[in-house]
Amino acid sequence: MPKTAREILAGRIKELRAERGWSQDELAAASGLHRAYVGIIERCEKSVTIDTMEKIAKAFKVPIAELLKD
Amino acid sequence: MPKTAREILAGRIKELRAERGWSQDELAAASGLHRAYVGIIERCEKSVTIDTMEKIAKAFKVPIAELLKD
Repeated sequence: MPKTAREILAGRIKELRAERGWSQDELAAASGLHRAYVGIIERCEKSVTIDTMEKIAKAFKVPIAELLKD
Repeated sequence: MPKTAREILAGRIKELRAERGWSQDELAAASGLHRAYVGIIERCEKSVTIDTMEKIAKAFKVPIAELLKD
């Protein structure tokens, strides 16, 4: 079954965190998101907005398209 | 000034519509979005969700990352 967009995003965020050795809390601090919200995104529980994805991409210093590469 | 994520998305949607010769109404019909909402997205007026971007990517038959390539 092909991955949903939420699953692609969650997987990429986990990968980028792992590459940097960041916890969810560290990503929250770097992006300005609430720590609980990072977990919600990684569990695919909400439909994240593009403005939130932009904050995450900036925290990782990657182009936003990198967050959705399958 | 670097483009915002909303601007990148709006630009890509316009490009993909132009490639297909689709009006905003045709994209709305193909994606199941309201016709007014397509205009709102293209004018960067709202922070679109990932679920909505997924509908647009499916209508264009492209991977979702294609919608955010700058």
